[in-house]
Amino acid sequence: MRPVAILGIGQTKVEEQWDKSLRELAGEAILAAMQDAGIQRAEGLFVGNMMSGSANHQQQLGSYIADWVGMPYGEAVHIEAACGSGSAAFRNALMAVASGAMDCAIAVGVEKMTDSPGSEITGELATAADADWEAGQGLSFVALNALIMQRYMYEYKWEKVHFAPFSINAHANAVHNPYARFQKAINEKAYLKATMVADPINIMDASAVGDGAAAAVLVPLDMLIRQPNRPFIRVVGSAAATDTIAVHSRKTPLHLSAAERSARTAYAQAGIGPEDIDVFEAHDAFSIMAALSLEACGFAEPGQGVRLALDGEICPTGRIPIATRGGLKARGHPVGATGIYQIVEVVQQLRGEAYGTQVEGARIGMAQNIGGSGSNIITHILRAE
Amino acid sequence: MRPVAILGIGQTKVEEQWDKSLRELAGEAILAAMQDAGIQRAEGLFVGNMMSGSANHQQQLGSYIADWVGMPYGEAVHIEAACGSGSAAFRNALMAVASGAMDCAIAVGVEKMTDSPGSEITGELATAADADWEAGQGLSFVALNALIMQRYMYEYKWEKVHFAPFSINAHANAVHNPYARFQKAINEKAYLKATMVADPINIMDASAVGDGAAAAVLVPLDMLIRQPNRPFIRVVGSAAATDTIAVHSRKTPLHLSAAERSARTAYAQAGIGPEDIDVFEAHDAFSIMAALSLEACGFAEPGQGVRLALDGEICPTGRIPIATRGGLKARGHPVGATGIYQIVEVVQQLRGEAYGTQVEGARIGMAQNIGGSGSNIITHILRAE
Repeated sequence: MRPVAILGIGQTKVEEQWDKSLRELAGEAILAAMQDAGIQRAEGLFVGNMMSGSANHQQQLGSYIADWVGMPYGEAVHIEAACGSGSAAFRNALMAVASGAMDCAIAVGVEKMTDSPGSEITGELATAADADWEAGQGLSFVALNALIMQRYMYEYKWEKVHFAPFSINAHANAVHNPYARFQKAINEKAYLKATMVADPINIMDASAVGDGAAAAVLVPLDMLIRQPNRPFIRVVGSAAATDTIAVHSRKTPLHLSAAERSARTAYAQAGIGPEDIDVFEAHDAFSIMAALSLEACGFAEPGQGVRLALDGEICPTGRIPIATRGGLKARGHPVGATGIYQIVEVVQQLRGEAYGTQVEGARIGMAQNIGGSGSNIITHILRAE
Repeated sequence: MRPVAILGIGQTKVEEQWDKSLRELAGEAILAAMQDAGIQRAEGLFVGNMMSGSANHQQQLGSYIADWVGMPYGEAVHIEAACGSGSAAFRNALMAVASGAMDCAIAVGVEKMTDSPGSEITGELATAADADWEAGQGLSFVALNALIMQRYMYEYKWEKVHFAPFSINAHANAVHNPYARFQKAINEKAYLKATMVADPINIMDASAVGDGAAAAVLVPLDMLIRQPNRPFIRVVGSAAATDTIAVHSRKTPLHLSAAERSARTAYAQAGIGPEDIDVFEAHDAFSIMAALSLEACGFAEPGQGVRLALDGEICPTGRIPIATRGGLKARGHPVGATGIYQIVEVVQQLRGEAYGTQVEGARIGMAQNIGGSGSNIITHILRAE
């Protein structure tokens, strides 16, 4: 594979974007990324999105968005891997550039969820689970995660309050991110008294739906010209792994085996180990997922992800900072866009542009995006060179 | 890009498959392709599908199907480009293998449409058009194509009866294809008295919805070992191009500019011209689309695609045989699967396995898959070596 770098990034604020359509949101992120990259066009567009067909009555997002941003003649396609759609789009764009099929690709993730009533969006999110054996039996996505969290608490003797640091860290960091949905700090008291969604998950454990888009421009590393004050951001690791679609088919619900496998492959590609990661944008769709990701990627022993959070090690000054721009919890989780938001935020850290939550000396960053209840997990490692 | 070949193919019959779920259909095609290829596993799975999220309440098709076929640990993703989803999945699998990211990928296209009531599926198909400016105004997909056909007839002075040969050829060829939905010949009289859907398109001009799946195994050419009686099937051209999503945004509705551009690029990659194509699986979702494709790809002058059909040149013994296994019209059009059915059928021709409709001495074949009203068109050229 020829080496690929990220030349530009762009994003919209995550919020209820009533006045912007799906294509306007995607277009805003794409044009920002093109401007950041200093390019006028790309050869390929890879759109990550989970549920536009049902939520927005629009499929064919490749052509739909390429047309809107004024490049209706290139190649464009829509990629879906549930909440992992964004990074799946990024990875397919990466392989397209790495293969030599194109020299410039844009990956954009976009999701517009708040047009749909809550009950409808809950049903649409559940299409990421097994329709026959999970969703069809009445299990919503938050319910599935609640079962996993319940089991984790029982197995490792943690209590609800021990998960508070995940949410507190995410919200504290989001205060400094103008693109975050909730730019407001919370404390342990607010965490504990938050409305319960599916016991033990309350709204402070769960990422909120939202509308948003994020984009990245990918080019071959050898086409870059060194700029003053801006390092090359090279993609040194990229790997995807799947697991059974239904949680009950796994030996244990407490190990994200696809996270471990995709991270291990990405580490090997980069020639590094978890100890070399300076910043980690984890998929904290629920607090329990953040804990399980930290464990699966080698940052903590099984059952000890919560300990890492309690010890402050996930904060920007800690050993393995996560959710540095707010994470899914506080930046927001427009599902198909999230994977690219994570990559955009890692790039900000590696460029030294993560104002307010900059991880000192960050040189290697990892983004991990989870689709379904861990059934499709994609890991990217970026390095400033 | 490193050269890629198709090692195996598989397909299910297209019909109303009430007794098989989405994953069972896809699994049947994948396992057939793996058996044909003589492999036990692949590293990547690329699933082409348009509307499972709404029609089958199931997204995350990558993990969903990888899990079902017993390879839940590799990479798997779902690709969508409306009716072009199948070939888009194939092309992304191709780029993955060409990039060196994997040495064996399976592309599968699957769609299960007949579970949904007719009115619902019509609405879901319309998500391939512009939701705001086409579908939202009441234009169904067949209505959009009827407007194009009406204009074509007016512009080039053709009458309804002149389109009959497209349907007659497709049905005549499907008689010999055990996987075809309609294995029954029709004549001009049957064509003319068929029920009108949207004037001038009657049911003999329109492909039928159906349930089905088709799959192909892709590997690097240099990993193949020559087998007796079976040529290498090399992908010598692969290109995708988009056009405006809405038909009214184009200079003319009668030129498939994305077909021309993707075909031209694929010809250039293969170092050939239209005169070198022995067999062409065109996207005859409607008779008018077959005519426009023939014109855009350089087989006929504008307005003269119909002439080619009238002269018998699209039959297996003609100059440019199309729909040789029944095409979308008579093999059937399970939308997300169609692009891979086309590739599978070209492979059959190049292997000399197109029993009953074999094109004598076929060595170079082309498959062209259209998403939307020409807004996303993907062309592949295969060569027997």
